[in-house]
Amino acid sequence: MEKDDRDKVLEFAIKHGFVYPAYEIYGGVSGFFDYGPLGCILKNKIENKWREIFCIKEGFFEISSPTIAPEEVFIASGHVENFIDPLVYCNNCKQAYRADHLIEEELKIDTKNLSLDEMEKLLEKICCKKCGGKLSKIIMFNLMFKTYIGPLNSRTGYLRPETAQNIFILFNRLYDFARRKLPFGIVQIGKSYRNEISPRQGLIRLREFTQAELELFINPKERKYSRFKYYENENLYLITNNNQEYKITAREAVDRGIFINEAFAYCIVLTKIFLKQIGIDENNIRFRQHSKEELAHYARDAWDCEIKTKRYGWIEVAGIAYRGDYDLRMHEIHSKKELKAFVTYERPIIIKKEILEPNLTLIGKTFKKKAKQILEILKNEKYVEEFKKKGKVIIELENDTIILDERYVKLKRVEQRIVGEKLIPHVVEPSFGIDRILYCLLDNNLKEIDGRMVLTLKPEIAPITVAVFPLVNKDELNAIALKIYEEFKNNGLYAIYDEKDTIGKRYYKADELGIPFAITVDFDTLKDNSVTIRFRDTKEQIRVKIEDVVKVVENFLKEKRYQKACAL
Amino acid sequence: MEKDDRDKVLEFAIKHGFVYPAYEIYGGVSGFFDYGPLGCILKNKIENKWREIFCIKEGFFEISSPTIAPEEVFIASGHVENFIDPLVYCNNCKQAYRADHLIEEELKIDTKNLSLDEMEKLLEKICCKKCGGKLSKIIMFNLMFKTYIGPLNSRTGYLRPETAQNIFILFNRLYDFARRKLPFGIVQIGKSYRNEISPRQGLIRLREFTQAELELFINPKERKYSRFKYYENENLYLITNNNQEYKITAREAVDRGIFINEAFAYCIVLTKIFLKQIGIDENNIRFRQHSKEELAHYARDAWDCEIKTKRYGWIEVAGIAYRGDYDLRMHEIHSKKELKAFVTYERPIIIKKEILEPNLTLIGKTFKKKAKQILEILKNEKYVEEFKKKGKVIIELENDTIILDERYVKLKRVEQRIVGEKLIPHVVEPSFGIDRILYCLLDNNLKEIDGRMVLTLKPEIAPITVAVFPLVNKDELNAIALKIYEEFKNNGLYAIYDEKDTIGKRYYKADELGIPFAITVDFDTLKDNSVTIRFRDTKEQIRVKIEDVVKVVENFLKEKRYQKACAL
Repeated sequence: MEKDDRDKVLEFAIKHGFVYPAYEIYGGVSGFFDYGPLGCILKNKIENKWREIFCIKEGFFEISSPTIAPEEVFIASGHVENFIDPLVYCNNCKQAYRADHLIEEELKIDTKNLSLDEMEKLLEKICCKKCGGKLSKIIMFNLMFKTYIGPLNSRTGYLRPETAQNIFILFNRLYDFARRKLPFGIVQIGKSYRNEISPRQGLIRLREFTQAELELFINPKERKYSRFKYYENENLYLITNNNQEYKITAREAVDRGIFINEAFAYCIVLTKIFLKQIGIDENNIRFRQHSKEELAHYARDAWDCEIKTKRYGWIEVAGIAYRGDYDLRMHEIHSKKELKAFVTYERPIIIKKEILEPNLTLIGKTFKKKAKQILEILKNEKYVEEFKKKGKVIIELENDTIILDERYVKLKRVEQRIVGEKLIPHVVEPSFGIDRILYCLLDNNLKEIDGRMVLTLKPEIAPITVAVFPLVNKDELNAIALKIYEEFKNNGLYAIYDEKDTIGKRYYKADELGIPFAITVDFDTLKDNSVTIRFRDTKEQIRVKIEDVVKVVENFLKEKRYQKACAL
Repeated sequence: MEKDDRDKVLEFAIKHGFVYPAYEIYGGVSGFFDYGPLGCILKNKIENKWREIFCIKEGFFEISSPTIAPEEVFIASGHVENFIDPLVYCNNCKQAYRADHLIEEELKIDTKNLSLDEMEKLLEKICCKKCGGKLSKIIMFNLMFKTYIGPLNSRTGYLRPETAQNIFILFNRLYDFARRKLPFGIVQIGKSYRNEISPRQGLIRLREFTQAELELFINPKERKYSRFKYYENENLYLITNNNQEYKITAREAVDRGIFINEAFAYCIVLTKIFLKQIGIDENNIRFRQHSKEELAHYARDAWDCEIKTKRYGWIEVAGIAYRGDYDLRMHEIHSKKELKAFVTYERPIIIKKEILEPNLTLIGKTFKKKAKQILEILKNEKYVEEFKKKGKVIIELENDTIILDERYVKLKRVEQRIVGEKLIPHVVEPSFGIDRILYCLLDNNLKEIDGRMVLTLKPEIAPITVAVFPLVNKDELNAIALKIYEEFKNNGLYAIYDEKDTIGKRYYKADELGIPFAITVDFDTLKDNSVTIRFRDTKEQIRVKIEDVVKVVENFLKEKRYQKACAL
């Protein structure tokens, strides 16, 4: 970990058009980045891979909701009350600081388990870093961006701090769509917003960022998850909240009770599989359990998925939280709408009990219009006990005292079949920060090979799939190369064309941008209609016919064997 | 046009999980919708098709920027001043109305060309629709959602009202990425926000919506556009701002001067091609030129692309604007950064002119340390004229008067080669409202065929690609059907599995959801390992081997011939 070093990965990303600091020409605004041409494609490809693994393959569905929500949503979810950070500002120059970060930086003290009072004590030793002024008391700052919906400030709204709430709010609609059966999963990929007090660290702490979240609704009484069997043997690197390290299979982790249930373990495994598939080194992936103090207000248990980076060490890129029934329960309370699923028991439960069987004819004849009310009242189970004690039941009805003896009612033993029950499902939530993952992907794949920089992204993830070059800048070669370039684009593949510089320089530039395949038109092409395909990582070349070149590259993208052709 | 009818397309969309009114359990917030499971896939597929046509095939690049921007951006762009609507509210109950819409609804008067004074006159005849109260004077309401970036309200920000500004602000970065050559295009697909005064009309007028925009930067001195030739013969249905209707080719429209240049015409044609390709009926597409009064503050010319719908008649789904140099010029002024391109002339311009050639030796010897300053001053062209009149040049330099006669300078005729010039590129902008397009796509494709409802979406656009059914609900059939279902999902195709109801009912449900292919496992499957593929629109069926079924469907998706198999 080269903590005080420059962020070379970020510099690389800015130089080559992956990202740009936002609003540069207006002096910049910290916590905001633009995705440039290469970064945007990379981000889309990461999201598509996530969608494939967490949604399509699982048979789950995706929704896409507004990012602005009315205040009620976040009062219910607890964010208005709990989504806060400790803020201090300089009484003199008004510079704001996040109190815990300031203490960690200036005093090198871990604040994770400190109370506010303890932090305030420590802050007395610290002055404003900008002007040396005295710092204010801690105020709790809500991280949600606030706005107003409609004219005349008619309704307070917030930009969502997570995509999850949209899913909880839509529960009844989505449960219907899932044909009223648990488990079912709903994902969302979209922007979330956190008005950080003083964001630093480039792409790691953004005020506007992209999340990909799965809310998996499960039956809380079910420890098993049927699809777990497919991945239960995947190895995991785990650190529990008592600082125990484990390298065990997902199955073992469930059996030892490290994970709450199989659905939770399944989400952990999918997380690892996803990261491996986009190209994170397996050895750079671990899962760290939250301490009680770290847990968000909605979570019963939570694990960070961390990736090892050169500059920042292990950083959190995803969190798998056991949200239990918290969110649906809170929205039930605040919206007064039922948000429940009906869970069928494996076999119906038979309850034996006694009821009072009324003599309908006699009651009808005797009490006439009041009969219906009397029958309703008799359903109350307390009268069974009364009848057993006294041999009769006494009912007060509209100033009348009605006495029903064994002529009117009699005791009867019955069996009741209960096939299931309504309950609030529990939620397992894997939540991903796409921006951080993109950063880690660049970090893990930017390598020096034989003195050249190579971005070793997997071919299916690399932003540009092919570079098309004429060997030298000659009209007859350029014309053919341009036609091949058009051919790739028309097949929906990202391609670039370049004729400047020596072919060596162009290859190296393509390597640096992570382009896995370089197609070169040379003088042999004029004779035999063939071109070379050069593989980025190995520098190997093969020769193929022009009419086959798109198909060949498409096959390399799809098939496993390209990994041999294009890998170290 | 069934104006007062219910919006049956919207009702269909809500019933089947395409969209849901947002925040329903909290009473709803108008102007916001969720995309449900089917709508979200459909939206993604529309966006991907747009990306393919407007970005990948053109060799353009995409960016993805923050949706929050600091105030400076929209002061420069003119949105703080001009992005406003006339608002009146009831003095009694505070209900707000958009003044022009209220006049149109209540008095049936077209407000397009009315002044504010004229509108206020008319408003005197109208009372509050809710309580009958008196209405306020018109106030101009800015449609941008406002927020604050950072703690202690440190910086005013707005949610962007269009994605375009991000691209203009990044111009220098993107121009570098495009290797400093015009033309080049940059696209963005993302959320934009407009705090409408009283949004109605379901998906047509949203407060938060998705735009897809291309900013095409061109040399303003160039009327030609090299790729125009590919599409110049496409037929267009045009209505100019003097209400002339044309059905002519794009080429003819350029030649008659209806479009400002070929790049503009090219963007019009791409718009039509895109809409046709996703499945809008060609006869339902027209382009309508804005009147002078309709033009946005940044536009020199603009055309709406309109699609004909059953309920709303012709509605605007895209706008193609000629923004000229407006945006880059305004950002240059406000940011004090140069935002220009260098345009090379076809052949260099040779300028013949006279200059003063200094006698370097003599000036050096005579004026020593001042010589450098004198040489600099002499470059000013005014001294050429002075020398021609007086035979000498008089320079004031640090209280010295320096006289240079023909010993020191002499007149010389030179030729200057000017290879190009710096200028602000012009911008052609096709801008799409994805939500409206999705609505129109449902509208144009929801049809009654032989007494059943069929959503005739193209197979590549339809949300769910295949439905997999056992003929009847029997374990041995279900098991095979489930395996096929897994196979489709593992190949990244959206699939559903269903075993309930009669097969006929399931087919009809699939037709209604627009699922183009239904795979059925029947009792023959147990014998010969084959299944049927049923085509949605024709109800035709073919029989294929289980091991081929994914490949066959994938080919139907890719090849033109599926359109025969799956079309009316």
